[in-house]
Parts: sequence; C-alpha cells; structure tokens
Amino acid sequence: MATSRESSVPYEIPDDGAAPVRAGIPEHGRVPRYYWLKARLVPLLEGLGEGGALPTERELAERYSVSRETVRQALRELLLEGRLRRSGRGTVVAGPKLEQPLALASYTEGVRRQGRVPGRTLIGLTRHPAPAGLAADLGVAAGEPMWHLERVLFADDERVGLESTYLAVERAPALDREFEPDSSFYAYLRERLGVRFGEATERLETVLATPREALLVGTPPGLPMLLIHRASRDGDGVPLERVRVLYRGDRFSFTVHLDG
Amino acid sequence: MATSRESSVPYEIPDDGAAPVRAGIPEHGRVPRYYWLKARLVPLLEGLGEGGALPTERELAERYSVSRETVRQALRELLLEGRLRRSGRGTVVAGPKLEQPLALASYTEGVRRQGRVPGRTLIGLTRHPAPAGLAADLGVAAGEPMWHLERVLFADDERVGLESTYLAVERAPALDREFEPDSSFYAYLRERLGVRFGEATERLETVLATPREALLVGTPPGLPMLLIHRASRDGDGVPLERVRVLYRGDRFSFTVHLDG
Repeated sequence: MATSRESSVPYEIPDDGAAPVRAGIPEHGRVPRYYWLKARLVPLLEGLGEGGALPTERELAERYSVSRETVRQALRELLLEGRLRRSGRGTVVAGPKLEQPLALASYTEGVRRQGRVPGRTLIGLTRHPAPAGLAADLGVAAGEPMWHLERVLFADDERVGLESTYLAVERAPALDREFEPDSSFYAYLRERLGVRFGEATERLETVLATPREALLVGTPPGLPMLLIHRASRDGDGVPLERVRVLYRGDRFSFTVHLDG
Repeated sequence: MATSRESSVPYEIPDDGAAPVRAGIPEHGRVPRYYWLKARLVPLLEGLGEGGALPTERELAERYSVSRETVRQALRELLLEGRLRRSGRGTVVAGPKLEQPLALASYTEGVRRQGRVPGRTLIGLTRHPAPAGLAADLGVAAGEPMWHLERVLFADDERVGLESTYLAVERAPALDREFEPDSSFYAYLRERLGVRFGEATERLETVLATPREALLVGTPPGLPMLLIHRASRDGDGVPLERVRVLYRGDRFSFTVHLDG
C-alpha cells in the first residue's frame, strides 16, 4: 500500500493508435517508478502466458535499471491484482479470475460450470444461541440454538475463500450427524430436507483479510477480498439462513444479469 | 499491505458471551501487534461516532504502549476499510458505506435514494474509432466512431468514483452539443433520444487504483476499488453501451436481489 517515494518518471505513451481505454497515466504524464515498471511488465506477462515463470527480482532490477524495492512494489501490486501468483519459491503468471454468477446457485455449481473442481474443508460446525442481530434472519427468536458452519473453499487444489453459514438448529436438527462437510450444503438442504429456495438479498463489498482469514485462505494479511453477505428465504418466504463468504479478490469476479 | 514484523502478541478474547461471528483471531491466538491495536480501536471509533476526531498518532502510541509505526499500520487498514477518513489535517470516524443497488438505475438515482446529493464532473468527452474489442458491444463495426465520456462521480462533495461510458456516435450524434455533462446520462438517453433500456450484464471485481485514477478520485494509489463492467442492450435487444465504473472500495457496497 506504500506510495513510492522515488522520483516519478515521465511516461512515454505507447503509439498503439487511438486506444480509447486510457492507461493509468495521469494527465501530467508522470508516474511513480514502480508503476512505470508495472506497465512494462504487463506485456512481458502476456508473452510468458499462464504458468510462465517470472525472472527473479534481481534479474528484473538489472533488466529495467531500477532498484529491488521498485521491483518488489510492482510485483506486489501484480500479485494483489491476481496477475501473478506465488508457486513454490518462484512467481508465475496467474490464470484469469474465476467468474462466479451472483445467483441462487451454490459455490459448487458455479465453480463446476467453469471446469474447475470445487472443494471444501470443514473448519468448524458449532451450536450457539442466536444473537439478536442474526436471529431475525434465521426466522427464530434471539437465544434459540443455531448452527455455525465454517468451511474453506477450494477451486482445484487452491484455497480461494472462506464461508460461514448460520442456520437455526430447528431447520436441520441432525446437521452434525448427517451432513458431509465436504459436500454441497444447498444440495443437502434441498435433497435431504426438502427445503425450497425462495429469494435472497446479497451485499458485496471489498474488505481486507484479517490475520485469521489470511491464515485459513493462505493469503497475505491485508489482501483485498470480496465479501458477500447473503440473507435467504425459503419458498414460503420464511427466513432461512445468513451466509458470509469471503472470496480472494485476486481470484474472483462476480457477474449479474439485470433486466430492464 | 506490509506485514508487521513486530513480535505477535497473545490476544485476549473479550468475554462478550457466545458471540458466534468470530473475530479475526487465528486459532493459535496470536496476532500481529497492529491487529491487536486495530481490534482495540474499533470500539473507540464506535464510541466517538461518525465525524468524531481520532486522537493523534502520538497520543494513541502512548495510550496503548505501541510504536508509532504500529499505530500507522492499524490506521492504514481502518482507512482502507472506510472506518476512518482524512479530514483536513486530522482523521475522523467515517460514516457507513453507501449501498448502491446493482440494477438498471443510474448512479444518480442510486445515490439520491440514500439521501445524498449525486454530482459529476466532466473529465473528457472524446471521439475515437471503436476498437474491435468494444465495437460489438456498441452494435457497430470496428473503426466506426464512438464517444468516450469520462466523469468523476461525487456524493455530496466527496469524490467517490470514476465512470467511463462508450457509445456509438450514431446513437447520439449531438452528444457533445446537447448533453449537460453534470446531468444523468441515462436520463438524456431516455428522455431526449427515446432510448428504452433492455437488459445488462455486469461484472464486479476488486482492483487497485492506478496513479491516474487515484489522482482523479482523490485516493491514495493502491486503494482497493470496486470495478464494475457493464454491457447494456436497448429494449430491442440491440447492443447499446459499455460502461466501466470504478467506485472507492472504502465508500461503497453493492446489493442485489436474487429470485429463486
């Protein structure tokens, strides 16, 4: 997040015709040196292609005649944006972000549709008295028992998110005995308990990963994440569940279709 | 983004009953010192209330017996998350994020609905030949003329975003003469040109502000932003416009209603 204190450098706008989508260059034409380098690294990454290994920091510093710190700052932004990813001890070109539809489909279905293998690992399934702020969204009185199901989300073998689901115990009394924690929770609700899904309201924002979240999702603390809050109702309009899903901001984008 | 290199500290979980939404504390119970401080500052901010002035860095460092650098790192995250904002030379408690619906309503309508005054400042209205990547979404052949309308978005007097709209010139030949750049573009299309809006596809992701964007929106470079890409069609299903709107991640969240 640090702003480079190095002297800014004039940016030569590449002569690529009338490209209308302006690059990130201010009108005064001067940019921080790390950004100058970043703009030069992007075509290099495109040339390498997905999975291609980046030269070392030292090699990049020599090739572009900049300091190691400038290289680190440029790579840090490219990592945060999901254009690069760490792989073993090196850094490689990342694939495109996963596009997840904002729809009443589960994580499982969304990831599968993109040809990736969804996975989940249980962090915890615990019972708590529902606090006032949650109870109304679960359709119970405050203090009634609720489940908190927390799982790490995977795409192929990559950790990509962290999901917390809150549900009244009376909706699924045998959840702790019947439910396979690496399976689809929505499939369980539908197929085992006959729950019909009605409508949901989702709210999206960008947040920074807490130390605990960073540890569970395997990202640096402070990585920008996409947080989705969901409140769902069943087919009869009765409050059903509250969900909080944190997705790696460097690995996900979300799409929605709007009707006029 | 820097990870604190200071020794981590054991975190005493406050005895606030069975709060089920876990704080950001890893199971090993140790957190970086800046996060320990951040967790303590949150109730302080709640006590101060919106607009309340934060004590100085030096006072906070003394009160919590931590270094100035630890204070700065905690404040940096609280600023990035939109819990604090700069005001003149000091730092004050920020208001809640604006909730913008993901709907075929304009920015204007969304902000007004929340009792804020929307505003826009023209950065540029320029003509370009449509590049291949955009032409199909504008319903014209590559090379046909298109408008690029770029505006900074305001809520009350605060800069909150940057909007780029691309539209075929044949859709609005007199745009540069007729359109008031601080008015609603959608109102112009509807009321002046009789355009009916059909459907749209939106894609949301989190990105870092480029130096140019940071300058125009008045944020530090590298601030997490929410980027929305929109492609709209008119009521006859004919491609209409492409829009790219960058919103301050510390000032906006987006809501969507999903039907089963």
